[in-house]
Amino acid sequence: MRYNNLDKTAAYGRLVEAAKVYSGFDSFPYRRKLNAARVAACSVPVADTLVYNWAAKKLDDDIVALLRELADEQELTAKYRALLDGEMMNTGEKRKVLHHLLRGQLGNDVVSDGKNIGEFYRKELERLSAFALDVRAGRIHGAGGKKFSHAVQIGIGGSDLGPRALYIALENWALKEGVTPNIKAKFISNVDPDDASAVLNSVPLDETLFVLVSKSGTTQETLANELFVKDKLLKAGLDASRHIVAVTSETSPLAHNSAYLDSFYIDDFIGGRYSSSSGVGGVILSLAFGPAVFGEFLAGAHEADRSALEPDILSNAAMLDALIGVWERNFLMFPYTAVLPYSQALSRFPAHLQQLDMESNGKRVNRAGEPVPYATGPVVFGEPGTNGQHSFYQLLHQGTDIVPLQFIGFDESQLDDDVVVDGSTSMTKLKANLAAQIVAFAKGQDDANPNRQFPGGRPSSLIHGKRLTPRSLGALLAHFENKVMFQGFVWNLNSFDQEGVQLGKALTKKVLSGASGDDALDAYSNLLGRPACTKRTPIA
Amino acid sequence: MRYNNLDKTAAYGRLVEAAKVYSGFDSFPYRRKLNAARVAACSVPVADTLVYNWAAKKLDDDIVALLRELADEQELTAKYRALLDGEMMNTGEKRKVLHHLLRGQLGNDVVSDGKNIGEFYRKELERLSAFALDVRAGRIHGAGGKKFSHAVQIGIGGSDLGPRALYIALENWALKEGVTPNIKAKFISNVDPDDASAVLNSVPLDETLFVLVSKSGTTQETLANELFVKDKLLKAGLDASRHIVAVTSETSPLAHNSAYLDSFYIDDFIGGRYSSSSGVGGVILSLAFGPAVFGEFLAGAHEADRSALEPDILSNAAMLDALIGVWERNFLMFPYTAVLPYSQALSRFPAHLQQLDMESNGKRVNRAGEPVPYATGPVVFGEPGTNGQHSFYQLLHQGTDIVPLQFIGFDESQLDDDVVVDGSTSMTKLKANLAAQIVAFAKGQDDANPNRQFPGGRPSSLIHGKRLTPRSLGALLAHFENKVMFQGFVWNLNSFDQEGVQLGKALTKKVLSGASGDDALDAYSNLLGRPACTKRTPIA
Repeated sequence: MRYNNLDKTAAYGRLVEAAKVYSGFDSFPYRRKLNAARVAACSVPVADTLVYNWAAKKLDDDIVALLRELADEQELTAKYRALLDGEMMNTGEKRKVLHHLLRGQLGNDVVSDGKNIGEFYRKELERLSAFALDVRAGRIHGAGGKKFSHAVQIGIGGSDLGPRALYIALENWALKEGVTPNIKAKFISNVDPDDASAVLNSVPLDETLFVLVSKSGTTQETLANELFVKDKLLKAGLDASRHIVAVTSETSPLAHNSAYLDSFYIDDFIGGRYSSSSGVGGVILSLAFGPAVFGEFLAGAHEADRSALEPDILSNAAMLDALIGVWERNFLMFPYTAVLPYSQALSRFPAHLQQLDMESNGKRVNRAGEPVPYATGPVVFGEPGTNGQHSFYQLLHQGTDIVPLQFIGFDESQLDDDVVVDGSTSMTKLKANLAAQIVAFAKGQDDANPNRQFPGGRPSSLIHGKRLTPRSLGALLAHFENKVMFQGFVWNLNSFDQEGVQLGKALTKKVLSGASGDDALDAYSNLLGRPACTKRTPIA
Repeated sequence: MRYNNLDKTAAYGRLVEAAKVYSGFDSFPYRRKLNAARVAACSVPVADTLVYNWAAKKLDDDIVALLRELADEQELTAKYRALLDGEMMNTGEKRKVLHHLLRGQLGNDVVSDGKNIGEFYRKELERLSAFALDVRAGRIHGAGGKKFSHAVQIGIGGSDLGPRALYIALENWALKEGVTPNIKAKFISNVDPDDASAVLNSVPLDETLFVLVSKSGTTQETLANELFVKDKLLKAGLDASRHIVAVTSETSPLAHNSAYLDSFYIDDFIGGRYSSSSGVGGVILSLAFGPAVFGEFLAGAHEADRSALEPDILSNAAMLDALIGVWERNFLMFPYTAVLPYSQALSRFPAHLQQLDMESNGKRVNRAGEPVPYATGPVVFGEPGTNGQHSFYQLLHQGTDIVPLQFIGFDESQLDDDVVVDGSTSMTKLKANLAAQIVAFAKGQDDANPNRQFPGGRPSSLIHGKRLTPRSLGALLAHFENKVMFQGFVWNLNSFDQEGVQLGKALTKKVLSGASGDDALDAYSNLLGRPACTKRTPIA
């Protein structure tokens, strides 16, 4: 396989050339082009439950043809297949990348050190499913004899953002579907002691099972919060070893440890931000909603993983989404992307995508360690609509810069509890707003008052489905994971390490050891908490 | 007063020239420059409770001098004074801008249509304070005779984001301080019916007081959610008029309406995103924590408003912060800013700042309606540290682009509940992480492995205080409001309207009326919920 930088491809120069006519607000005549036929023509299935529509993106078939060439040149499908087959795609850390295998097998058997990894993942899934069933049935209970009514995950980054976003996404769905028992999940992540303290103030400790998640077993925040929790359990007279399960790797200090009720394992081939499909997300979701629901989620993700194997970009939503993102980032030069789910249940999904995308592709060297001369991962942010409409959409509509948009919407609500006002339900209003925004951003509107002028020319795509369920949620998550993977291939990055988090960790340790060796660092450490202002002297 | 575009000032050209030596990661020798003396020299008080430190920003006294010239040319202090004195600074809507007056009087008496506006605001504050005391004492109670234990705000945008962020910021503080009774606040904002339904499932209706907030009384989402709530109250046999108070303008359909237990008024001089200091934030915060706490919040904001009057930029934190932001946006050309509070209590504060900043200054025409030839408001995003460190900081450290950073930190936790692990408390670890990040971003680190190379050169500032309290929170909020105001003056914008939200509203109405007149809009409306994929035909 070839590993070329983006700017060394033949397609690159042609895309640079082609982009010249696409810059600016009015370079793309949306008012003429964006019609019902185009909307109908630009749908690609993500999975049985979701469709990706790119009608309002700023490109035509000429650009699609160039992006197809780029996909071929960068061998996106072959690289994905190699990853599935267990090639060491995390080059920096010399690791395989196997989160797809958590959801089902699409490639060859992957064997490492004589161990069949797929079998290992399946066995861990079975173990955690059985454990969750035991807890849900009350066969496993608290040290005081009470059934567990709450599960609290202790983890940070990938051990927090994905699982939390998924739990919130399914909480109302489970309520509506009558999933019982209702084990409520909460999350402790920040090393700020107020985080752990507030969560612990809000749960009945004797009915709470803690899920301690750290792959390495050495995460500073998570270990501090573990002791925070153990201290409270001790004070409550509860045996901590009967209130905590661990999710970790088999080589971590948390593994095979009698301090925990049980332990579930992942390995080095599952990156933190890709770990929601493992025990990292699986234990808490299976406790809260039951293993069958988690199984549906995995099945939805597996479907999307399969459709990401489609060789042609116009049949492969993740690949097309990835390439359009590259078009926008490297040729139209937009440095950010907004994710706008029209679903309150997805309120924390943008925060998860922010990690997924920015931690994977926020890199300045390629997989061989050479600085790349082009832009890589964009800044990703977002909030649910319609809330965002009353917040930052002003800038999106009338700011001086163009922010590409990714909308997400569903036909039905989760709770099916609604009210008719002025002849329409709230759900109908929600969808009308979503459709209206896409067209408003693209087409804009003229007005004699320049302050009411909308330049339009603001591209967006839409992922839509019937309802947000465990299955469609799985497909949604996998879609974005695969999009980010394909973009990493195009940019020739290693999307699976995160060396950029190390320096802060190292300096923190120095501060805590009392020997930072940097007087500015000492000065900042001393500054925090001294509200009195120092008299100013010149600094030139 | 002069209202000139930024690029017409004399300082502009000199800043463009000066910026040439500042671009790139290694243009500013942080490793030499950022030392203890610089940290000590670069502190400016925001208020008694907060300090702004800009030592790690990418500028020296030569640039400060040019920014001072710019501040003088654009008459920032005079414009702020004019605003305080009641000049019509919201030119598009022909309105005064008087949110500062909610916190205390700094200018002349402001009279409009014969009415003293300051007196009006003070009277409304007294009324809502008395009302909150009555509710908290149980003198006002639910229709079924029960004391109110919950308050649920119904509002969106400025009627939601600010009040919600402030409530979350003070919830743990109030718990620690023993503020009783503890009236729990919740919020309904989205027109997604799952939002209202889920919140209503989580509160005891007969003990819940709803705070309905809409200045115009015509906000689609809020009216839909009002009826949603009324429907549930009706079904529960509760008289809705005894469970809802309104916060609105005196000319709105919600005003003087017997459908509500009481009404509290604001006027057109209080913009939505600047309304947290009015009844929009005041009713829910006074219900939850008592009017004295809300009074402390206002006092803190008033202090920051007063220090924003300091004529010299090196004594005026809001103005300096604003000008450094302009330096970064228009001369160093950074299109975004991240807000990173090292405080879990500020988890939703970045979402509020996102609205405050992007809705105020995300404009492409100046206050006279002429397109401006320079960039205005940046994209604002953020999450609390240390959580963000395990998420998007990878891109911030090692991405291809520079994202300016705004850190916020405190010396003490709110709950004062902590644990010592490896010789330090969690709070000490939190602060060590914050100090370490500032230095890591600025100085970077060399490494033989290019993947572990940190280029540094990433500018940040720090706002810090002793503890997040009602008073420091008020100062923090006002600091950012004033920063955004000053930036609007520099860019010659009207920061107080939001015409960019109108087109989406208009198109939504067309969709709901069934006559959109745009076949793409109809196609999108029909698409939502049809997961089957249309067969593709060429679109060129």
